[in-house]
Amino acid sequence: MRTRRLILIGFGSVHQALAHLLITRQARLQQDYGLDLQVVGVADRGGAIMNPQGLPLDALLAHKRAGHGVSTFPQGTALPDARTLARMAGYDLLLEASPVNLEDGEPALSCIRAALLQGKGVVLANKAPLVLDYRGLHQLAREEGGPLAFSATVCGGLPVINVGQRDLIAAAIHQVEGIFNSTSNYILSRMATGEPYQDALAEAQRRGLAERDPRLDVEGWDTANKLVIIANAVLHVPAHLEDVRVVGIQDITPADLAQARAKGEMIRLIATATREGSRWQLEVKPRAVPITSFLGGIDGWEMGVVFRTDIFEDIYMKIDERGPTATAAAMLRDVVNVGV
Amino acid sequence: MRTRRLILIGFGSVHQALAHLLITRQARLQQDYGLDLQVVGVADRGGAIMNPQGLPLDALLAHKRAGHGVSTFPQGTALPDARTLARMAGYDLLLEASPVNLEDGEPALSCIRAALLQGKGVVLANKAPLVLDYRGLHQLAREEGGPLAFSATVCGGLPVINVGQRDLIAAAIHQVEGIFNSTSNYILSRMATGEPYQDALAEAQRRGLAERDPRLDVEGWDTANKLVIIANAVLHVPAHLEDVRVVGIQDITPADLAQARAKGEMIRLIATATREGSRWQLEVKPRAVPITSFLGGIDGWEMGVVFRTDIFEDIYMKIDERGPTATAAAMLRDVVNVGV
Repeated sequence: MRTRRLILIGFGSVHQALAHLLITRQARLQQDYGLDLQVVGVADRGGAIMNPQGLPLDALLAHKRAGHGVSTFPQGTALPDARTLARMAGYDLLLEASPVNLEDGEPALSCIRAALLQGKGVVLANKAPLVLDYRGLHQLAREEGGPLAFSATVCGGLPVINVGQRDLIAAAIHQVEGIFNSTSNYILSRMATGEPYQDALAEAQRRGLAERDPRLDVEGWDTANKLVIIANAVLHVPAHLEDVRVVGIQDITPADLAQARAKGEMIRLIATATREGSRWQLEVKPRAVPITSFLGGIDGWEMGVVFRTDIFEDIYMKIDERGPTATAAAMLRDVVNVGV
Repeated sequence: MRTRRLILIGFGSVHQALAHLLITRQARLQQDYGLDLQVVGVADRGGAIMNPQGLPLDALLAHKRAGHGVSTFPQGTALPDARTLARMAGYDLLLEASPVNLEDGEPALSCIRAALLQGKGVVLANKAPLVLDYRGLHQLAREEGGPLAFSATVCGGLPVINVGQRDLIAAAIHQVEGIFNSTSNYILSRMATGEPYQDALAEAQRRGLAERDPRLDVEGWDTANKLVIIANAVLHVPAHLEDVRVVGIQDITPADLAQARAKGEMIRLIATATREGSRWQLEVKPRAVPITSFLGGIDGWEMGVVFRTDIFEDIYMKIDERGPTATAAAMLRDVVNVGV
């Protein structure tokens, strides 16, 4: 049995779901994978808490749900912030699921670099650090020998990155198309049935799937973030956010959706990476697609991707993901698979 | 650069496609994976040929396409049969893609056991050996330390087994549903447009995707084979073919298809594994599903699967596979990933 000590940066819906999984799957993880996973530190916006013996997760979840920050949790030692926690030596893996911050990536970037510089493993659900510094973080991970896994950053539980990196061996990919943001997809699906935009957005936020800043979802930037990660990780293109042409769904009207429907089409927010000679064209924009097509059939809370390749022909994947658990499960998958 | 010597058992459409990939992807495999792959032996029904310096694949493919068995190829040493080739010491990986033989699994089973007993790696596209002796082969591989990979056995290039084994970590799977046989799916899709059964079957055979014995496809046994492999590899159920209730498409009429279509449905040959308490119910049968559903949308040459899980919710995957190349590519993927 290997004991692995985790610290969690961010304690919102994804890491709360992960804490719940660590409680309910503890016996399974021990039995099937020989892994005893302990959370020895957690940080949220208000501070951090650590306990080298392992934090009691049930009690910590109850404390957080009662509206308290983690730093006031009595069964541990309070620390001022996430960075201080990440610089401590007493853990094996840092898990990052703090809110997406595209301005400077903080506090995630500092925390991840602190972990990698100590040779520790890092598992990400937060896309911003990869979007801002994909190459730098990977170089640091290679130099210091710590694994860096991020299968949870694209389509939550759907193993888009893993299939792209591990299964499409020796293939030339011509095109990647995908619907990567379930909030905007859900909003479009509801608007297509006549529901007002604000109601659909409010429901998405209630379910804990919308980003805190809904502009990330509806203006297409969350989708573009995922496209940048796929470009770097699967297509081996050193793309940045400014390389993506982005148009969101904010100007789509119920009339547009009704007009599309009359033609047997549905408007979806679609990310596309298309190879043109030695270059890739990256874009995110609302497109009308046949309702009977694969992308047209990615409805409501679903997300999906199409890899158009030479030797594997066309591979389609989608997930129906109605809460943060599948993203947390993808982080747990990475924790098991990195094998530190 | 690691040199790896391969022997190929069977030299039908899949291994001919693989030989073509080894020629066209040689530089890519060397550059991206540091692998120099050489084919040092090939067996077909008429005998075998070996050459420790590596067989010239272009010339061997031309020889085979001209209607000659491999054992008469001049640039090598003839051997009497596949088993003799598999017992030779001078290779690293045995690749098996001979015709499915559910009677006794030969010559595949003897060849695979000979390779595993020597501690060599095995990569399978042939389902029969796993269906007949999944546990025995895996035990032998564990004992002797050689890898045993078979991602090509289920849905060709679609990484169903890999996603099930590597990505659905710590999940409870409630149900697996799938369309695993593109020949019968193609026949049903053509029959739904009014084409006679025999014409659709002949076209499938012309494209090299139908099993040599079409009863494997249309009577559901190929689908059942794949379900047995998924049950063992992903669900950890020691299932055998006799545990699967199998009904084929041979009694489906154009009238049945027209009747379904009038209700917005399509008849597909669907494999299902359903957990019922601690047991699994395994069955293959034609079922009418809504045309707009994921399974209903798996049309023509497509194959696909749905994993219904707890923590990853529902994951859907499908592939559009019109020839043997994607299955050969899946074998190549396994050769690279087993890392011997």
